[in-house]
Amino acid sequence: MPHSIDRRRLRAGIVGGGRGAFIGSVHRIAAELDGQALVVAGAMSADAARAAESAAAWFLDRSYDSYEAMARAEQARADGIDFVIVATPNHLHYPVARAFLSAGIHVVCDKPLALTVQEGEALAKLVEHTGRIFALTHNYTGYPAAREARERVRHGELGEIRKVLVEYQQDWLMQPLERMGSKQAEWRTDPARAGAGGCVGDIGTHAQNLLEFISGTHIESLCADLSVHVEGRRLDDDANILLRLDNGAKGTLLCSQIACGEENDLRIRLYGTKAGLEWHQQEPNTLILKPAGEPWRRLRCGQAYLSEAARAASRTPAGHPEGYLEAFATLYRDVIADIRRVARSEAPLGSYPDVHDGLRGLRFITAAVESSRRGAQWVSL
Amino acid sequence: MPHSIDRRRLRAGIVGGGRGAFIGSVHRIAAELDGQALVVAGAMSADAARAAESAAAWFLDRSYDSYEAMARAEQARADGIDFVIVATPNHLHYPVARAFLSAGIHVVCDKPLALTVQEGEALAKLVEHTGRIFALTHNYTGYPAAREARERVRHGELGEIRKVLVEYQQDWLMQPLERMGSKQAEWRTDPARAGAGGCVGDIGTHAQNLLEFISGTHIESLCADLSVHVEGRRLDDDANILLRLDNGAKGTLLCSQIACGEENDLRIRLYGTKAGLEWHQQEPNTLILKPAGEPWRRLRCGQAYLSEAARAASRTPAGHPEGYLEAFATLYRDVIADIRRVARSEAPLGSYPDVHDGLRGLRFITAAVESSRRGAQWVSL
Amino acid sequence: MPHSIDRRRLRAGIVGGGRGAFIGSVHRIAAELDGQALVVAGAMSADAARAAESAAAWFLDRSYDSYEAMARAEQARADGIDFVIVATPNHLHYPVARAFLSAGIHVVCDKPLALTVQEGEALAKLVEHTGRIFALTHNYTGYPAAREARERVRHGELGEIRKVLVEYQQDWLMQPLERMGSKQAEWRTDPARAGAGGCVGDIGTHAQNLLEFISGTHIESLCADLSVHVEGRRLDDDANILLRLDNGAKGTLLCSQIACGEENDLRIRLYGTKAGLEWHQQEPNTLILKPAGEPWRRLRCGQAYLSEAARAASRTPAGHPEGYLEAFATLYRDVIADIRRVARSEAPLGSYPDVHDGLRGLRFITAAVESSRRGAQWVSL
Amino acid sequence: MPHSIDRRRLRAGIVGGGRGAFIGSVHRIAAELDGQALVVAGAMSADAARAAESAAAWFLDRSYDSYEAMARAEQARADGIDFVIVATPNHLHYPVARAFLSAGIHVVCDKPLALTVQEGEALAKLVEHTGRIFALTHNYTGYPAAREARERVRHGELGEIRKVLVEYQQDWLMQPLERMGSKQAEWRTDPARAGAGGCVGDIGTHAQNLLEFISGTHIESLCADLSVHVEGRRLDDDANILLRLDNGAKGTLLCSQIACGEENDLRIRLYGTKAGLEWHQQEPNTLILKPAGEPWRRLRCGQAYLSEAARAASRTPAGHPEGYLEAFATLYRDVIADIRRVARSEAPLGSYPDVHDGLRGLRFITAAVESSRRGAQWVSL
Repeated sequence: MPHSIDRRRLRAGIVGGGRGAFIGSVHRIAAELDGQALVVAGAMSADAARAAESAAAWFLDRSYDSYEAMARAEQARADGIDFVIVATPNHLHYPVARAFLSAGIHVVCDKPLALTVQEGEALAKLVEHTGRIFALTHNYTGYPAAREARERVRHGELGEIRKVLVEYQQDWLMQPLERMGSKQAEWRTDPARAGAGGCVGDIGTHAQNLLEFISGTHIESLCADLSVHVEGRRLDDDANILLRLDNGAKGTLLCSQIACGEENDLRIRLYGTKAGLEWHQQEPNTLILKPAGEPWRRLRCGQAYLSEAARAASRTPAGHPEGYLEAFATLYRDVIADIRRVARSEAPLGSYPDVHDGLRGLRFITAAVESSRRGAQWVSL
Repeated sequence: MPHSIDRRRLRAGIVGGGRGAFIGSVHRIAAELDGQALVVAGAMSADAARAAESAAAWFLDRSYDSYEAMARAEQARADGIDFVIVATPNHLHYPVARAFLSAGIHVVCDKPLALTVQEGEALAKLVEHTGRIFALTHNYTGYPAAREARERVRHGELGEIRKVLVEYQQDWLMQPLERMGSKQAEWRTDPARAGAGGCVGDIGTHAQNLLEFISGTHIESLCADLSVHVEGRRLDDDANILLRLDNGAKGTLLCSQIACGEENDLRIRLYGTKAGLEWHQQEPNTLILKPAGEPWRRLRCGQAYLSEAARAASRTPAGHPEGYLEAFATLYRDVIADIRRVARSEAPLGSYPDVHDGLRGLRFITAAVESSRRGAQWVSL
Repeated sequence: MPHSIDRRRLRAGIVGGGRGAFIGSVHRIAAELDGQALVVAGAMSADAARAAESAAAWFLDRSYDSYEAMARAEQARADGIDFVIVATPNHLHYPVARAFLSAGIHVVCDKPLALTVQEGEALAKLVEHTGRIFALTHNYTGYPAAREARERVRHGELGEIRKVLVEYQQDWLMQPLERMGSKQAEWRTDPARAGAGGCVGDIGTHAQNLLEFISGTHIESLCADLSVHVEGRRLDDDANILLRLDNGAKGTLLCSQIACGEENDLRIRLYGTKAGLEWHQQEPNTLILKPAGEPWRRLRCGQAYLSEAARAASRTPAGHPEGYLEAFATLYRDVIADIRRVARSEAPLGSYPDVHDGLRGLRFITAAVESSRRGAQWVSL
Repeated sequence: MPHSIDRRRLRAGIVGGGRGAFIGSVHRIAAELDGQALVVAGAMSADAARAAESAAAWFLDRSYDSYEAMARAEQARADGIDFVIVATPNHLHYPVARAFLSAGIHVVCDKPLALTVQEGEALAKLVEHTGRIFALTHNYTGYPAAREARERVRHGELGEIRKVLVEYQQDWLMQPLERMGSKQAEWRTDPARAGAGGCVGDIGTHAQNLLEFISGTHIESLCADLSVHVEGRRLDDDANILLRLDNGAKGTLLCSQIACGEENDLRIRLYGTKAGLEWHQQEPNTLILKPAGEPWRRLRCGQAYLSEAARAASRTPAGHPEGYLEAFATLYRDVIADIRRVARSEAPLGSYPDVHDGLRGLRFITAAVESSRRGAQWVSL
């Protein structure tokens, strides 16, 4: 007879993500998409009216005015939430995650992990101490193509990787939106709420994480030229970074939020001694493999020739485009499966970015900011 | 104070869609994606064990052994389902829809509408008689780009449409899967369960519907050359069809399930006196506009320059790919909003394919089969 | 010691192609591109002043007022031209070709071959009788990718071909240019100078020729719906044609000169039992191969993995785009090599479209026009 | 009456470019393509037999054993060459160019200009002193799309340029070809014949030149991480370079000859305050314009909406792909027109890369090598 945890959808709560923050809906859709969880409780805004209104719009069972109250109350309930989603500005990641971990509740947290490496280290200790699941939503690793790419690298299909090119170009901050009433832009350009990195923290970390996820290498040192192109902005809105990896490869990580005409153009190219590989987030169902001396191959999500890891991440046959929400949902599906495992006293698989990946992201941000501050000199991670 | 229907997720039931039929999951995900409904009941298989197992896998509250039992029981419950999803082979569409409509339950039904025009007409009368919502899942009309395309045509941006090219190419039936154990292939190639059209019924109707949806024209007559390329198959697996439209335009509708290497390649091109337009389902977030004498424009879903109709159909900002499931979900969202309207005694908007669209599809299939049977002669719809 | 013909560039003459006709320059560039011939003589216009002016602009040694005079004079010279290029409107193809063939001069002629099947048959006899080289510039067969495609089909890589889709879409005649001073449009829409086919003759024959060239099959019968979309036009400007091929395959040939936004969009898709294949003239250096159940392969011109036939048709390494002029030049290179062979009393290879291909083109036009005239009924070729 | 120089094709000579060097044929085709010049003389190899054989294969009138002999003899002839093409390894550019300039003969020279900045400066003085035309074949500036891009930037369509990304990826040196019998690889990896830069000199200079050509800005300083990925190679085969431009923009220049699967992937992206712009050499007939807040526009070569500068660089209507050879030919056409101007005592237009552009290229190479040698520190140009 199945364990009781396996006979129901899990119950989730959310902190942040109230109306206006598109990422809130993304988390709800992703958490619920595979029918394995329902969001039932929330502390969706620091503003009480807004919190209540947001919760009602989502038909939540329980709405709280503060995350502290929510953590306490949910811990106390027999039917309390199984996990919490942290969808707040960066400066709250640490205190919110701490509150729920301390209440014995699993955590799924937005990236970057925290404001500083110090906070990140404290969080890592707390995760270890509490034994709770902690997942960081580097959601791009949920794409089937990203997983296929990692499998191909792991199985040596690229040979030794020599050159890596990862970039993430956007244009949404090419105007001073933070002075034009955009709450999203406001906190993202405020060091107190976003941390030391602007663009490099917001999307550069996604690029860094994806690069390390797929390539299986780590950035050893970097030389970062961060820019503020929009006058008066307090954090970088563009970065060009030289990379040296621990396997001897070299390359660049480019990110921008002032790249006029670009939407969400995360892409990666790897070049090895046996093959190259290319993927674009905006055309996510296709992965290009470039074997030496042979025609490029266009691998397509949903096809039987893909690895088990990639196939498991598709919900529909090939040709039925899946996208951002499905990739995000795959992360949740993996997390939820691990929460069930923990409930059954089984070992979690951990097949999603965790607190240690989050720490690497914070070290990357810190190094990039430090490098740039010194006039774009080399800094080790 | 909001109407009680507006204070909760709707309750949905499903007939068919048990394990093995990917379309079952698609319906569940799509119906629930926007947080406006939950699937709580099902008669998911004619096989009782399989039905129960499928229902348990989805954590349904209630599982039935037959759709008749389900219709009766749900009609009787205070917390019965608000609407039913019909995800069965074609020959059951009519009886299942009839059972639920008669029980006063709204219906969302897979395409094609029924086996014959006669059944379709009976269904149309029943829908009118019962006043229930009846939606047909020509899901491709849920894509933001398809809606943008329709808006552009409506507003005259193409001028007078002269030429239309719509196609839907797949390869999944290029082998005789129906004799190799594939249940999906089995019923789709069986006239008793699929109807008179094979490929032309299964995907040709999607192409016909999308063409008429976007162009605002109707097929007036056609000349269809249907083929059976796989030996022993009982229904067409490929069709090449000349079209004449009621506005004087001409063109072709091509569909195939033996087009080696194609996945789900639905695409449409329209050419008018002022502009052309092109859309590919496999790259759904981009719509190409080709104004006479000017550079092509690449319209992207999620952008502020799109029509309200298209913007309302995106859940994320531009550059966050949405796909098949989201488009399907948009249909459900519109249907659910109409079910709420009906509950509040308001007029439904009907912004989704309905029983009359389904009838047009049946007439299209009938005409295509008739034309081909006569050696590819012209037949009026 | 090499034959004297091998120690010099060949001498070419041209009839037609004076200023304003871009195709004249195309022929000159193509004939000379590989350094194997020089255009030295011409009767470039019926207007004497224009003829002289055009000849001077090209630094020709000899300019004539009429093709008859040119044929006589060049035949008489010790250093007369080795071959003539016929770049006139269609109605002159036959008399001009006849004059030069009768003068013992090899001919390279624009398509379509002539105005009627009868003229074409007379020309075929004359070619046989004179033993001169006669090449028809179905230039798209000169593309390396088209040659690679043919090789792949020949070697059975596609298996048995089931479905063929060829199209050629343009928009240059979407306005009534023939009444707006365009000489090119004027003769192309005049039955007396263009022949019975408009769009179907001008570009439909290219599509038909390319289809037969690559697929190795022949069109057996067709059902053509020709249209005149621009009011007052005397010849078709759009065609949608159902095809049945002699190997049992079916498909469509579409062509248009009113497809708003399209430039010169010739493309072909073939679907066999083992693989599919796709090529677009506007991205000519890439050929897509779609093996059943495997990733698409992107074959690139200039790569070592291509067939000898395709490699011989590239002048530069992969990644150095070659285009329309180079493909045209490849036809000339093959013709010139054959002219040298004939001079050395060797058998020509004939690896270019010839008078028999031209006859097939005329039969295609005739059948399409006849089919359409009967209300789009089936007609055998 | 036209000047005598205007009544004939110009006479060209070539140094280098003998059999095996594809670039020799490229120069011949390009120089002759527009019917404005013929190559009639050559010193095509240091090996006398090879020189004679190469000259015979091209039907040259005169073949020389050395460039010195050729310069002297051609200077002395009444019908001597009008200009010489220098298609030798880099170390000969300077002495060969010097010999012909001193003989009063115009020069078209391969890039990079010379081995060192010192040689380049000497050459610049000589060009000024002799008043001869000196063109450097940064051939990518001959593409219509590159010229259109420059016009758009000049006319302010991009606003202020903030970010520039230029790259040139190849894979042809991913194996140690220089030890496997490839003459092309041999001299290109030999500092004595290639200069201080390997990949950065061979293709990095093309990228640098194209960037400055289109953007109208200059690289002010750079931080270059050059790599030798193939063991035992004496010059860099990969480079990742941070750039700062004189207008305040920042960006990267990436080049590689070990990027597995890439052919000749030169591409450029510019991001301004009003629009972005993107061009790929491998799809040369398309230029993407990305105006802020509007759909991307796909500008196509040959279209009437392009600038005069771009239209003049196309030979065929839109949709007839032109490529590498045509772009190269456009440079020659401009040079030849200037040689005619000089003969008519008119001022040359200089609309092609010249000796000063060559000097900038040498300074770029020098700075990149110097930066990398210091551990990738910033160096000013």
